[in-house]
Amino acid sequence: MNLSGIIAYPITPFSNDNKKVELHKLGAVIDTLLNAKVDAIAALGSAGEAAYLSESEWKQVAEYTVKRVNGRVPVVIGVAELTTEQAINRAEYAYEIGADVIMVSPFSYYKLSESEIFTHYQSISNATPLPIMIYNNPATCGVDMSPKFMLKMVAEIANTCMIKESTGDIQRMHKIYVLSGGKVPFFNGCNHMALEALNAGASGWCTAAPCLIGQQPRKLFESVKAGNNEEAKKLFYKQYEFLEFIVKSGLAAAVKSGFALQGIDMGEPRKPLLPLTDSENTQLKQMLTGLNSLS
Amino acid sequence: MNLSGIIAYPITPFSNDNKKVELHKLGAVIDTLLNAKVDAIAALGSAGEAAYLSESEWKQVAEYTVKRVNGRVPVVIGVAELTTEQAINRAEYAYEIGADVIMVSPFSYYKLSESEIFTHYQSISNATPLPIMIYNNPATCGVDMSPKFMLKMVAEIANTCMIKESTGDIQRMHKIYVLSGGKVPFFNGCNHMALEALNAGASGWCTAAPCLIGQQPRKLFESVKAGNNEEAKKLFYKQYEFLEFIVKSGLAAAVKSGFALQGIDMGEPRKPLLPLTDSENTQLKQMLTGLNSLS
Amino acid sequence: MNLSGIIAYPITPFSNDNKKVELHKLGAVIDTLLNAKVDAIAALGSAGEAAYLSESEWKQVAEYTVKRVNGRVPVVIGVAELTTEQAINRAEYAYEIGADVIMVSPFSYYKLSESEIFTHYQSISNATPLPIMIYNNPATCGVDMSPKFMLKMVAEIANTCMIKESTGDIQRMHKIYVLSGGKVPFFNGCNHMALEALNAGASGWCTAAPCLIGQQPRKLFESVKAGNNEEAKKLFYKQYEFLEFIVKSGLAAAVKSGFALQGIDMGEPRKPLLPLTDSENTQLKQMLTGLNSLS
Amino acid sequence: MNLSGIIAYPITPFSNDNKKVELHKLGAVIDTLLNAKVDAIAALGSAGEAAYLSESEWKQVAEYTVKRVNGRVPVVIGVAELTTEQAINRAEYAYEIGADVIMVSPFSYYKLSESEIFTHYQSISNATPLPIMIYNNPATCGVDMSPKFMLKMVAEIANTCMIKESTGDIQRMHKIYVLSGGKVPFFNGCNHMALEALNAGASGWCTAAPCLIGQQPRKLFESVKAGNNEEAKKLFYKQYEFLEFIVKSGLAAAVKSGFALQGIDMGEPRKPLLPLTDSENTQLKQMLTGLNSLS
Repeated sequence: MNLSGIIAYPITPFSNDNKKVELHKLGAVIDTLLNAKVDAIAALGSAGEAAYLSESEWKQVAEYTVKRVNGRVPVVIGVAELTTEQAINRAEYAYEIGADVIMVSPFSYYKLSESEIFTHYQSISNATPLPIMIYNNPATCGVDMSPKFMLKMVAEIANTCMIKESTGDIQRMHKIYVLSGGKVPFFNGCNHMALEALNAGASGWCTAAPCLIGQQPRKLFESVKAGNNEEAKKLFYKQYEFLEFIVKSGLAAAVKSGFALQGIDMGEPRKPLLPLTDSENTQLKQMLTGLNSLS
Repeated sequence: MNLSGIIAYPITPFSNDNKKVELHKLGAVIDTLLNAKVDAIAALGSAGEAAYLSESEWKQVAEYTVKRVNGRVPVVIGVAELTTEQAINRAEYAYEIGADVIMVSPFSYYKLSESEIFTHYQSISNATPLPIMIYNNPATCGVDMSPKFMLKMVAEIANTCMIKESTGDIQRMHKIYVLSGGKVPFFNGCNHMALEALNAGASGWCTAAPCLIGQQPRKLFESVKAGNNEEAKKLFYKQYEFLEFIVKSGLAAAVKSGFALQGIDMGEPRKPLLPLTDSENTQLKQMLTGLNSLS
Repeated sequence: MNLSGIIAYPITPFSNDNKKVELHKLGAVIDTLLNAKVDAIAALGSAGEAAYLSESEWKQVAEYTVKRVNGRVPVVIGVAELTTEQAINRAEYAYEIGADVIMVSPFSYYKLSESEIFTHYQSISNATPLPIMIYNNPATCGVDMSPKFMLKMVAEIANTCMIKESTGDIQRMHKIYVLSGGKVPFFNGCNHMALEALNAGASGWCTAAPCLIGQQPRKLFESVKAGNNEEAKKLFYKQYEFLEFIVKSGLAAAVKSGFALQGIDMGEPRKPLLPLTDSENTQLKQMLTGLNSLS
Repeated sequence: MNLSGIIAYPITPFSNDNKKVELHKLGAVIDTLLNAKVDAIAALGSAGEAAYLSESEWKQVAEYTVKRVNGRVPVVIGVAELTTEQAINRAEYAYEIGADVIMVSPFSYYKLSESEIFTHYQSISNATPLPIMIYNNPATCGVDMSPKFMLKMVAEIANTCMIKESTGDIQRMHKIYVLSGGKVPFFNGCNHMALEALNAGASGWCTAAPCLIGQQPRKLFESVKAGNNEEAKKLFYKQYEFLEFIVKSGLAAAVKSGFALQGIDMGEPRKPLLPLTDSENTQLKQMLTGLNSLS
């Protein structure tokens, strides 16, 4: 499994009463992403509100995504469960339905020790042959993993072979690069640090942005790869406020509002999450207009 | 509902394969707490590993606790669900089975805005007539609520009438006291700040410590109330390292190990949580011996 | 040297052009403090704007303070110099003029390692027979010293015999108490945590508050010692907003404005420090009126 | 004044008794930097231990630097004084002796408000016609200035025309770029973020590294400008551990030790600063050997 480029994150559309997942609308989101020429689809991440789905909804979304993508690009499935038992259950399911990669983060109530996290990943690895992307996002998961510790897992736990770093601290990427001699692929999970992450050696950028701004993230990726630094800078700063905005206002809420602004109903995020406020909506509208995603 | 004194937190015993809740063992824990003359029992908090239980296990524990306590002291039920819908479901269940209070915290994956938190509490309040203790514990729940915001909820949302503050920042308690004119009861949720919280006006102390050290927390509470400050200081510092230890090593793991050291099998915490390490166990043994809880 | 109770911090009055120290006005401040029955006078701390004085001004203030106090209570002199050489120079001067204690903090531009800090204190200790209060205040000095490290210095460096802790983290005081078996005296340097610090075993409270509110800090100290906890709580919360205010708005600026509100001109703080804004002045006036320090 | 590229920071050599500045040795440092083809020399920054010099030493260093550089590249003089009066004094002196730019940071004991900082810069600007680089380094200066606030000063205070950002937070640079429409030049002050800062639009890199590794920083700068991203990445990661090391172990100590490893005696840093430990020296030796600066 050799991921690189733009790893795109679909949202999970809900019905108007907030109670059901609307799979056909998810299909439209996936089509939007494939039209934006993304390199992989990662379902059930933060943007997909995985933490807010029931087990059966989660499984529906996973299965539907794999079927809809239908091998056109690799499918990554996020696994962020509170118990190891549930995480194994989801990992096994991802394998069964034909996903290509699982992205595992130690979502947690209690702070976990490194030995607890290690055992968690080890148990999941034992249960599935799928490649595992180790995903560090303390802001949502409540647990922080150092580059050194993640690389230890990559070295010692079968199937763990890449890292998604979402702290927004560029030094973490430097550490991953230096400590692994540049050999362990890492991905950027902090939208508004994409330019620098790519320059620092990230293999790709994990982002929900293509849901709303199409190929613009991909063009940034390509400019960096081509050494067109002035163009890359220009493309990045053009997207910058939008990228910062969707992180700060909440990915699911922001992307769903962005679809609504285009006249596409994806429902609201699941409570306690709320849709964007009116003033946030106005900001988003301006940004999307500036980015030619709204006319 | 006029809570004060020692609000005690039982652990949730599991079977040896980590898969089932052992209710009769939970009964023994509750008896231990009642023998320690605690003023209330709070099930399904952090110590009770509520976040790691299935819905049906959660309901079993809640129901069993109310029955076992049988009115001898008030029963508080913790509600810390990721979705508002599930939180309402649990709150309704707590009422049905005859609990006295619910303790609600905004456990979260996404950071929540104040308006999301407010709506979450409002929705729960609409669904149950039970008194609500607002519980702030950013270290586990991932969301921090300021004293000002919590008091706003107390003022505007029916049934919200007291606060449990677990940040360990004594200034939060000062703010609650000053901003409410001393009128909104607050409880200390930071074990190793109990002495100061009580002196600053906390109505009580929420703690799992009586599981292992019996009446010693209660004696500290009484010394402070009686103005025996030298004795209070002595009692507090005697317990201090133990109190800090159970927080830092994880309440559930520490209390379960403490029972095991007394020859009482409560199972292990649920994975990814692990039992104490050998060296932690040795430390705990020394502390419990010093506190006369082990001979 | 057995300090306890209220250690009071005079401000340093300046002339109207901000260029000269007004020693006779400093005399009036010292008289105010002695009338408030404080247990010691500590010149050249934060409140005294020591960092903003030239060497010769610093020496004038030190000498004048010792003479004016004239043995009625002990005099503590703050030493917070950027170079070890200057710190020794000030420590020697403090001894020469007859001060009783020096309070030494590692004011710093570069972060200092523990070994750099240790050597700094050792060098000062070698240069003077005066008792040394180790003063930890990372918010102003830029260097944080752990309880464990400070106690190591107390154990290994002659003359270092007490600690002033100003982080506002009550756990630091617990650590000092527990790690030293209650034997190393510590003082509270965080005004709005005075109640709890005294309950946790602080020997005294280092504060500029008596400049403006006379004996009220002393009464709080006495209530705690007498076990009058309800009264202590009442006294503390009465002063609370004032104590928090003078810290947050800057001790020197706040105290000078407080004197001005009483019609006593102490000049302005030294630039870049500015006097309170109009709205802060209004707040201060209300607080002082509520505390009966303004009629 | 159009600064760009590598702004190099000389250390300040002391005599063996730590008491005097050795100007002829400073001359050798400056020559080393000019041989490394740096674009400007910035005296009296952190690396130059400016905070640890007496006023007359400071003036000697400033004057000597201007003379020695003798117009070959622009000379920047750091001004980081505790009082506004002293800062003005130094700024005036820098102008008198013919420096080209002053780099002003609000070194502070008390936390300063934005209005205090603004007034400080305004007063300095009033006293000198020299261009002012606003320098933000909260780790050493104790005061943090937001991009928005610094840009407000650039807009409203004459002579303030560029920014040096040393927090190590790449988002600060994004903000400066976006909020100023790319029009206010900013410089990177965080050595181990140089690659990304340059890609994000920094005009140059402020660094003491050329003291020890010659033209390697310049080559990195040039690769980025030329769009040779693979080469830039390679050059950056080759220097990375060294760059991180000199920041973490203290610039002055590390650079002086690096000279000593080459057989060039620059004295020790001024106490309380200490030279590198033996183990740090060994690390540095290995790194410099790997970078071909030691054979």
